[in-house]
Amino acid sequence: MSVLEKTGGNIVYKKIPVPKPGPDEVLINIKYSGVCHTDLHAIKGDWPLDTKIPLVGGHEGAGVVVARGELVKDVQIGDYAGIKWLNGSCLQCSFCRTANEPLCPTPDLSGYTVDGSFQQYCIGKAAHVARIPKECSLEAIAPILCAGITVYKGLKESGARAGEYVAIVGAGGGLGSMAVQYARAMGLHPIAIDGGAEKEKMCKELGAVAYVDFMTSKNIVEDVKKVTPEGYGPEAVILLAVNEKPFQQAAEYVRPKGTIVCIGLPANAFFRASVFDTVTRMINIKGSYVGNRQDTAEAIEFFRRGLIKAPYKVVGLSKLQEVFDLMEAGKIAGRYVVDTSC
Amino acid sequence: MSVLEKTGGNIVYKKIPVPKPGPDEVLINIKYSGVCHTDLHAIKGDWPLDTKIPLVGGHEGAGVVVARGELVKDVQIGDYAGIKWLNGSCLQCSFCRTANEPLCPTPDLSGYTVDGSFQQYCIGKAAHVARIPKECSLEAIAPILCAGITVYKGLKESGARAGEYVAIVGAGGGLGSMAVQYARAMGLHPIAIDGGAEKEKMCKELGAVAYVDFMTSKNIVEDVKKVTPEGYGPEAVILLAVNEKPFQQAAEYVRPKGTIVCIGLPANAFFRASVFDTVTRMINIKGSYVGNRQDTAEAIEFFRRGLIKAPYKVVGLSKLQEVFDLMEAGKIAGRYVVDTSC
Amino acid sequence: MSVLEKTGGNIVYKKIPVPKPGPDEVLINIKYSGVCHTDLHAIKGDWPLDTKIPLVGGHEGAGVVVARGELVKDVQIGDYAGIKWLNGSCLQCSFCRTANEPLCPTPDLSGYTVDGSFQQYCIGKAAHVARIPKECSLEAIAPILCAGITVYKGLKESGARAGEYVAIVGAGGGLGSMAVQYARAMGLHPIAIDGGAEKEKMCKELGAVAYVDFMTSKNIVEDVKKVTPEGYGPEAVILLAVNEKPFQQAAEYVRPKGTIVCIGLPANAFFRASVFDTVTRMINIKGSYVGNRQDTAEAIEFFRRGLIKAPYKVVGLSKLQEVFDLMEAGKIAGRYVVDTSC
Amino acid sequence: MSVLEKTGGNIVYKKIPVPKPGPDEVLINIKYSGVCHTDLHAIKGDWPLDTKIPLVGGHEGAGVVVARGELVKDVQIGDYAGIKWLNGSCLQCSFCRTANEPLCPTPDLSGYTVDGSFQQYCIGKAAHVARIPKECSLEAIAPILCAGITVYKGLKESGARAGEYVAIVGAGGGLGSMAVQYARAMGLHPIAIDGGAEKEKMCKELGAVAYVDFMTSKNIVEDVKKVTPEGYGPEAVILLAVNEKPFQQAAEYVRPKGTIVCIGLPANAFFRASVFDTVTRMINIKGSYVGNRQDTAEAIEFFRRGLIKAPYKVVGLSKLQEVFDLMEAGKIAGRYVVDTSC
Repeated sequence: MSVLEKTGGNIVYKKIPVPKPGPDEVLINIKYSGVCHTDLHAIKGDWPLDTKIPLVGGHEGAGVVVARGELVKDVQIGDYAGIKWLNGSCLQCSFCRTANEPLCPTPDLSGYTVDGSFQQYCIGKAAHVARIPKECSLEAIAPILCAGITVYKGLKESGARAGEYVAIVGAGGGLGSMAVQYARAMGLHPIAIDGGAEKEKMCKELGAVAYVDFMTSKNIVEDVKKVTPEGYGPEAVILLAVNEKPFQQAAEYVRPKGTIVCIGLPANAFFRASVFDTVTRMINIKGSYVGNRQDTAEAIEFFRRGLIKAPYKVVGLSKLQEVFDLMEAGKIAGRYVVDTSC
Repeated sequence: MSVLEKTGGNIVYKKIPVPKPGPDEVLINIKYSGVCHTDLHAIKGDWPLDTKIPLVGGHEGAGVVVARGELVKDVQIGDYAGIKWLNGSCLQCSFCRTANEPLCPTPDLSGYTVDGSFQQYCIGKAAHVARIPKECSLEAIAPILCAGITVYKGLKESGARAGEYVAIVGAGGGLGSMAVQYARAMGLHPIAIDGGAEKEKMCKELGAVAYVDFMTSKNIVEDVKKVTPEGYGPEAVILLAVNEKPFQQAAEYVRPKGTIVCIGLPANAFFRASVFDTVTRMINIKGSYVGNRQDTAEAIEFFRRGLIKAPYKVVGLSKLQEVFDLMEAGKIAGRYVVDTSC
Repeated sequence: MSVLEKTGGNIVYKKIPVPKPGPDEVLINIKYSGVCHTDLHAIKGDWPLDTKIPLVGGHEGAGVVVARGELVKDVQIGDYAGIKWLNGSCLQCSFCRTANEPLCPTPDLSGYTVDGSFQQYCIGKAAHVARIPKECSLEAIAPILCAGITVYKGLKESGARAGEYVAIVGAGGGLGSMAVQYARAMGLHPIAIDGGAEKEKMCKELGAVAYVDFMTSKNIVEDVKKVTPEGYGPEAVILLAVNEKPFQQAAEYVRPKGTIVCIGLPANAFFRASVFDTVTRMINIKGSYVGNRQDTAEAIEFFRRGLIKAPYKVVGLSKLQEVFDLMEAGKIAGRYVVDTSC
Repeated sequence: MSVLEKTGGNIVYKKIPVPKPGPDEVLINIKYSGVCHTDLHAIKGDWPLDTKIPLVGGHEGAGVVVARGELVKDVQIGDYAGIKWLNGSCLQCSFCRTANEPLCPTPDLSGYTVDGSFQQYCIGKAAHVARIPKECSLEAIAPILCAGITVYKGLKESGARAGEYVAIVGAGGGLGSMAVQYARAMGLHPIAIDGGAEKEKMCKELGAVAYVDFMTSKNIVEDVKKVTPEGYGPEAVILLAVNEKPFQQAAEYVRPKGTIVCIGLPANAFFRASVFDTVTRMINIKGSYVGNRQDTAEAIEFFRRGLIKAPYKVVGLSKLQEVFDLMEAGKIAGRYVVDTSC
């Protein structure tokens, strides 16, 4: 429905045929789809990875299964299901067979290399579509399908165990507010780092044990460290938008033997660390991409139990370009979800 | 015996009293001591960490226990024992009690914050001195006590499992040649990276499955990747001297979800990585410092079984300054070991 | 003060000299001490391990440090500290140096091989005494020092991750009620198994997501499995008193690839499992003993944050024999704590 | 070709149609197939799991891909491929998506619930057939496809690390001799346990560091323990045929915190362990079933590198009943491989 015809252009709306699922695929009647920063990168074409053209974007789609291929047994017509970033993978390579399917060298990426969820009928590989329990709200779960899974995966990758501390840099944003809640539900103690009193209020309500305000703190490194019981700093750091200065600070306040998890994909960013400090403090720096299918199921289960509330705002799919304009201008707090019926 | 009286100066030789072990200490009659790059940093004072002054250097000392404090039960007079970099630690902090004693905030560092093994009688905390089996040669084991343990620890930290590939950058040097052998003994397939035909010969004899010569390779990244069965690159990289270019290459050839272990402490070096690649390839960058007491015992056990041969050359302790001069000039291959009796 | 002079006899009260701490020891003025089933085994002498005689029992002692040896730096006079089952260990063997000090072959066991906490002044090795934060109540924390640490350790050993399910067999007892709370605080979903409506009420209040009553269930195996989202059973089972029938049931309802953790030391019990089921379901059966020093610190930190409330009843140390008589008769719910001042 | 028409009966030979692969399947022209004890269980019907009837047995089949379904991309016509016990699984359940596909609740089992490799043309799910490199001998690799993978998986499940000791009970048999070689290739020190001088010779040639002869040892427990450097026993035990007495001994000689891995599926066997010992020594008892697809690839890679030599004897498929008769009589050492062309 919403189609990008040229990288760098605006999206246009038009009718396209409803696709027919292959033997191992399902067709989902998308009801709602979250709008992610990645969608903007797809439009702008500023990542070192080409998109399909023409392209239907979107990779946080939630809907109802309306058709399926002959090999599909596990998913039934009428089930709730979700389209996520990884639309499909080979399921046979050494990455897929070790549950690292996001690293499959031949992935189908929703709204990027295959058509995504900014339309009413979207194809997904049956083995990959997210299983959504019937008691879940389709509009509320949409942002979980990318943002939620991604932060949950990052928290798992951090290796932090229940009772340990995790600093969340950018805790007041869309991903950050979910990260605080997931951390909490996992028995971790989240230290929220962001700017401003409004974000402080929200972070603490969501369960942060402390808030460090980068706009007012005189010494972020010391302020983060002193929150932790022994003063050695948090066992893990989740960096939700990796830029040089926050990274550098994280490398200083993370506990020796701790882990900094980098999430988020600014187009041309680098991080830089002192070898002496990294070695003598035995710091671990990890990149974390999207979750695998098991992470997806787990992230959804936390949501189903009512432990995660993602703030979102619903608008019609016809307003998608306006959402992108707001996003480009940096004016979005929380998540926009588009309703494909209007 | 060999004493540094002023940071940045030359070492001098003089008689100093034989110390008396405290209740939890042993006195070791040092027979041989390896000479490590760290000793040179201590003399030059170019690390962001002050030394004791006056200082007896050395932290690869092997000898015989000649006295012990009242609390010491586990070590007997006449046992072989070794002085290593970590002379002592509190054994009570949250690092020590989780077997991360090299991260103890109140460590005693041999030949740096306490007197080390460039003398005939050296004190060590009984809980920390390396237990050396009687069948081992004291001169041959000296380089194991720092170099050997350090590379073994790095290999463990890499998380590589038997049957996986590990690139060793600087494989032809003193640490590198040990790393190749430890990797081999651990069931790993080492890919040696260094320069020149002579080093190629040595690395292959020690067990490297392949050699990539940075002096002649037209494309190091591709040359390393094509050695691995699927062409995705090695699961781990051991960087024995972390500099920007080799690091950058490692980040490109390491397998997705693989680990780059940084070892070695050049005074003011930094590494730098692309966020996009680190995230989408889920790379892990780790600093690895020295081994703990268990790593020490394990590294020595590999040596005892005859699996590790470290090339070394013995000279009298009286030639120590000459060894430092050669080291400063970059003219040492393998390891020098000083004999404290001459 | 309370002394056992003969295995199998009753305890007697008498004055004994206040001991003087050795160089690596502290003297604690015990204020409160929990009473554990192990203390009863010590008196009866029915374990395959001899006690010291005469013996002062007790290994859940909480008090104030009043003296310390010359080597002790980390603990100050006036600090709160606790005596736990493992009074001391060598800190040098391959178990101690890998943070498995409860497996040290030369342990000092409080109230068993060395005098314990049923007295006013008790010796502990400084490296082992539990560090108790000043904001904690000494009487409330006493039961944490053995029961709390033990169940927390068992939960860690189970390998269950936040979001997973853990069945707790005997959830309504003293250890069980703590296990439910620790599980909850770790982000796990506890399924309580015990008998009777009163215990059901308590378990649910403490955070159990379900209760299976072995007195009324027609099919315990099915009832446990159906609580879990996919019906495959819980990822872990904590068996707080290992007897044949509950063990057999656990082996049937635990999820394939799940773990059954056996805790508790009935004198002559055995468990028995079908090889075919254990193999094809890849079940893991683990024995879990007491926690190490790090587990101790973590278990106390959960308590300090107010996440664990252990029900207990305080009586004077002079009533200790009566507590044992009640325990022998199986009439104790929750934990008795003795006040050493009366 | 070789068909079982009735459980408990003899096999008969007849022509059956060559099957056509479904969209996600391949057809393999089987050249060789190993004969496993499981095949005998299938015929006798003494396992608590029903077979398909009529049934073509066999699950160690090696051959050449001759046809494939429309969805298959990863496997090419002409590739070498192998049929293993797990012919197919759903690839979507919580077990499959965490690389535990042998635990899939809806598996296809070769030669058990679907037709296997005792025929010339056999169907396999493309995602599951073993990828066999072209340089491998198809007859030599056949026994790797079940026996090899199974012992390799057991060694992985043991958690033993390079440099540690692993006791292999039944080291002189078909599985045992492979286990000794895999252990060796993984950097482990295998202690072989079996009976007789001939087996001792073979085990030591294959790399066992010691041999304990249960026919002549006066104290197996002590004899195993004293081989290990500290005398605490091996970190892991691989029990290749789980019977009560060897299990009981293993529970006594395994190192505290060590792991006993049970492999092999005698029809009605049980194991039994003392709770006190299991708890205070923190022993881990694990069942290990067959390997997953990644284990398969890894086990084959060790074989490809020439590290594993499995003794086998080739006979024509027409002699299969005779092989079963020998197996039933306990007269087979090593492995029989049938040639499907004669």
